[in-house]
Amino acid sequence: MTQVQKRGKIYEGKAKIVYATDKPGLIIQYFKDDATAFNALKRGTIVGKGVVNNRMSGVLFTLLGKKRVPTHFLDTLSDREMLCRRLDIIKIETIARNVVAGSLAKRTGLEEGTPIREPVLELYYKSDALGDPMINDEHVRMLKLATPEELRWIRRMALRINGVLRPYFRRKGLLLVDFKLEFGRHAGRLWLGDEISPDTCRLWDVKTGERLDKDRFRRDLGGVEEAYQEVFRRVVGRAAAEGEASGSGKKASVSEPGRAAAEGEASGSGSQGLTP
Amino acid sequence: MTQVQKRGKIYEGKAKIVYATDKPGLIIQYFKDDATAFNALKRGTIVGKGVVNNRMSGVLFTLLGKKRVPTHFLDTLSDREMLCRRLDIIKIETIARNVVAGSLAKRTGLEEGTPIREPVLELYYKSDALGDPMINDEHVRMLKLATPEELRWIRRMALRINGVLRPYFRRKGLLLVDFKLEFGRHAGRLWLGDEISPDTCRLWDVKTGERLDKDRFRRDLGGVEEAYQEVFRRVVGRAAAEGEASGSGKKASVSEPGRAAAEGEASGSGSQGLTP
Repeated sequence: MTQVQKRGKIYEGKAKIVYATDKPGLIIQYFKDDATAFNALKRGTIVGKGVVNNRMSGVLFTLLGKKRVPTHFLDTLSDREMLCRRLDIIKIETIARNVVAGSLAKRTGLEEGTPIREPVLELYYKSDALGDPMINDEHVRMLKLATPEELRWIRRMALRINGVLRPYFRRKGLLLVDFKLEFGRHAGRLWLGDEISPDTCRLWDVKTGERLDKDRFRRDLGGVEEAYQEVFRRVVGRAAAEGEASGSGKKASVSEPGRAAAEGEASGSGSQGLTP
Repeated sequence: MTQVQKRGKIYEGKAKIVYATDKPGLIIQYFKDDATAFNALKRGTIVGKGVVNNRMSGVLFTLLGKKRVPTHFLDTLSDREMLCRRLDIIKIETIARNVVAGSLAKRTGLEEGTPIREPVLELYYKSDALGDPMINDEHVRMLKLATPEELRWIRRMALRINGVLRPYFRRKGLLLVDFKLEFGRHAGRLWLGDEISPDTCRLWDVKTGERLDKDRFRRDLGGVEEAYQEVFRRVVGRAAAEGEASGSGKKASVSEPGRAAAEGEASGSGSQGLTP
């Protein structure tokens, strides 16, 4: 990896800040500890979350890259920084589900925990102003959010990602209940973007059923930090030992101009908060 | 039409009562003036609505029957009574849309009145308890509401119905903004059921844009009865003159046992209230 220089802030979301670099096609994602839920009606801090989400996403993006899933991830630069391809984000949040939870329980009247025979995919319109409403393929067409071909690719990729992550988490003693994906365009093709973490996945302990994800924050269950650390231990801890992690050993050099560093840990706004 | 005897009440909905007949495969729909909106949070009466909806549905079902749309409609028996095939109703409400209005405006942020290039279909889970939530094809599969083949048929038929009704209403000076359809199984195949009326369609005057449908009731716009009568005049009045209406001249004989008649106009409960 050649040296990349961090430049000005492009965008600050609820949980992440995106910085430009001296390379127009590359950005740096900075992971904050800020947490929001219910379209930012609930706000708080989960100490250490940024490190967990950054390092865990690095491990999972690396894994997915090996399994024919193109991702925006290039390198883990530090505890809270990830070097990525700069995507033109598609305004669709794709949810993949293996077990009924959250809004799917409300929508269907099925109990949380009900297994789903075939994975269920849902599309949401990525719009804070509208509260991320669920949409269907015809809304996508009408709003011109993605072409039919792009949407087919997104579905195929979401199922492929589930097919990789579900057994992977299982081996770590975690049930992958559901998760959110975001995709974007870069260099004439589509890539998986954003992050994969306890902020964007529901992960339940396989044996106890204990929730080890952001639902502990959303539902005031306590032990929020501990849950994130437990997931970190199971996924990143072992990944590092197994050599699955990228950037945990070799570190790409990044130089921080004072301006960008000064903007480091400002408060959150913008988009990140869909509850599956 | 052979004589059909009305028997006991099978089901009372918000706007209709369904009676059994002496023929197991046939039912009588009785149309009330009761109106509800917002999942029955709002209740009222629209005088004469039952007559409008019954007679108008008869005209439109007859029209659709001639255009390769199998419907449950057999005959208009009286001002408020319709003889129908007894369907096993599929718990999906299908909405077809030509112009942005109602929940689609809220969902997409587009202004009411925005034309839609290709008709948009939406599926809703027919469940009062859950408030008729929007669902997608994978929810339909998961909940086993319909087979993939049935769903394909429903979509094809919804588009065909739109292709018949939209120009038909246009000729009456009415813009068909959107409408709700319900389908059901009978004798091993699928049929269009329920009703087609200002309760289930958004109809705007082509010239003035005036709303001539249940939105006048939902949104307290006044002139509710007048709007229903105007639609009646344009659709049923002319249809009768053009010989499009079934049962407006020839009347099937129906005998009413006292028990069923006594149950006539009780207050509403049950399902009818999806707002598109």
